Amino acid sequence: MKLGYETLDLYPRHTFTISRQEETGEVFRNVLVRLEHDGLTGWGEAAPDIYYGENWLTVGAALETFRPLLEREKDPWGAENLMMELDRCLSGNWSAKAAVDMALYDLQGKLCGRPVYEMLGLDPDAAPLSSFTIGIDRLEVVAEKLREAAACPMLKIKLGGPEDLEIMEAVHRANPEAVVRVDANTGWTPHLALEMTEKLVDYNVEFVEQPLPEGDRDGMRWLKARSWLPLIADESCRRLEDVPRAAGLFDGINIKLAKSGGIRHALKMIHTARALGMKVMLGCMIESSIGITAAAQISPLVDYADLDGAALLADDPFRGMEFASGRLSLPSSPGLGVEPRAG
Amino acid sequence: MKLGYETLDLYPRHTFTISRQEETGEVFRNVLVRLEHDGLTGWGEAAPDIYYGENWLTVGAALETFRPLLEREKDPWGAENLMMELDRCLSGNWSAKAAVDMALYDLQGKLCGRPVYEMLGLDPDAAPLSSFTIGIDRLEVVAEKLREAAACPMLKIKLGGPEDLEIMEAVHRANPEAVVRVDANTGWTPHLALEMTEKLVDYNVEFVEQPLPEGDRDGMRWLKARSWLPLIADESCRRLEDVPRAAGLFDGINIKLAKSGGIRHALKMIHTARALGMKVMLGCMIESSIGITAAAQISPLVDYADLDGAALLADDPFRGMEFASGRLSLPSSPGLGVEPRAG
Repeated sequence: MKLGYETLDLYPRHTFTISRQEETGEVFRNVLVRLEHDGLTGWGEAAPDIYYGENWLTVGAALETFRPLLEREKDPWGAENLMMELDRCLSGNWSAKAAVDMALYDLQGKLCGRPVYEMLGLDPDAAPLSSFTIGIDRLEVVAEKLREAAACPMLKIKLGGPEDLEIMEAVHRANPEAVVRVDANTGWTPHLALEMTEKLVDYNVEFVEQPLPEGDRDGMRWLKARSWLPLIADESCRRLEDVPRAAGLFDGINIKLAKSGGIRHALKMIHTARALGMKVMLGCMIESSIGITAAAQISPLVDYADLDGAALLADDPFRGMEFASGRLSLPSSPGLGVEPRAG
Repeated sequence: MKLGYETLDLYPRHTFTISRQEETGEVFRNVLVRLEHDGLTGWGEAAPDIYYGENWLTVGAALETFRPLLEREKDPWGAENLMMELDRCLSGNWSAKAAVDMALYDLQGKLCGRPVYEMLGLDPDAAPLSSFTIGIDRLEVVAEKLREAAACPMLKIKLGGPEDLEIMEAVHRANPEAVVRVDANTGWTPHLALEMTEKLVDYNVEFVEQPLPEGDRDGMRWLKARSWLPLIADESCRRLEDVPRAAGLFDGINIKLAKSGGIRHALKMIHTARALGMKVMLGCMIESSIGITAAAQISPLVDYADLDGAALLADDPFRGMEFASGRLSLPSSPGLGVEPRAG
């Protein structure tokens, strides 16, 4: 197989802010990965996040480290071993690994002439409705975003700022029927989180994501015993070994390909969460339709989808899964089913 | 898809006895399943076990119950949903479900022209060495079986009878280099099990399988804290939800397709065991090369293989994985790679 890659600059329609300040962004530099084999191209996308120790430069460095291993492989069929070898030669760097994993799945599907969801035995019509995310912003900007999202029956609201309740009021006024998910991105203390969950029950809130800092296990145990709403782990649950640790502290986990290292690893996390009786959410970073469509392939296995990363863009360079106000529709073409938009 | 099935009588070379008396057998009546689609035949095998509530009659009844669901499906690609529907319309009956699951994987591989292990991204050369099982018998018969197994570097010895230590002495004399696994099949008390593990360390024993009755959790907790050898759950771990329950009581689990309900479910159990830091063994019932080869497809993911079910037969009606004194070699033909033996 032959490896190629290049940077991909993505511009959200609105500046995207969450409670962890380092991630406010007007442009997100992802890395597009191509694995070529037998006249076919497998596509992948790395959406690096500095919170998880990656940016586009580290992704390039990781891909160069992986190059000899990838180019030594004669085809994409030895994926399990290959992904383990990547782990052995360089730990972490999950979004770079996720891009390779996506490209391997894309190639496998193309070699068999089948979409990835079919290769995994999954029914694309079973994909759950996805939420659409409203980042933290001044109230008037939030109101504008809410008007744009008026057709979305499911919203994810980023909280963790000083105007949290005013924002929830605005959401409720703008779209009183919407199911709302709240994401605090580690922004609260246990007592504030408890107070917030009690208030949020009046706003049609389905669950709260990552209320406390990643490592606050005692705080989470205290909160879980009292919370008025289900609690979902995001920053606290990155990889397979984190899933059993999240049991008892959270009601479910949010899996993202960029933090797990790809589809293959995400499947292992889903099955483990099920064994532990936990809910499963499938999330994303700011990504083009490559990364989002890769995640969507396994969405029939999860309870909650939050796959709006490409829908938030001003200009998505790829065509793949259709978002349609949160109703996900997967392409039926082989592999991931993504292709560059005619430019 | 079209469903067909028939009984398959299997004769072990020696009468097969384990410590649970109900399972002594001179003939094992399994059920051969065929799913036909698009001119191709997917093969599966049910190896029912009365301990798990199944025999060949219940397998037939379950398959008749599943027939409308299977024949309504246009192809084998919706396997995840289909297997969940089988669970919803009839709980239990895992060996019948395993046979359907094997046939679905066989068809998928044949439709893509690839072996199942390749479809799963696995390296067939990574399959671990398998043990060869010596059932409970009079000492002179054990000695004869040991002569037959002289070329096997790994043995599994069924204990739980009055002559346990004499048998271990005979094993050690016959093959002092062999790595030995001991299976008590629920036959011991906690104190006897502790005493046995202390004695077994002198006999090159790798681990002890299912020392205590299935539900004795307090006994297992007591034993696990003291045991001289690793402990593997078999009867105590059937399905996905049993894996977290086995953590803390056992060091690993023995997965068998006939008790888990097939390859798809077995994969979920493997990933969950890994998340919990547990060892994974892949075992079998008395089965033809269909069931054994199906299990062998995922053996590259496990630590310990015990896939001798077809090697124990006087006459295996199918050709598939080669056993070669425990060195497993998977067929490279599409799907499971099994076919009826000529004659």
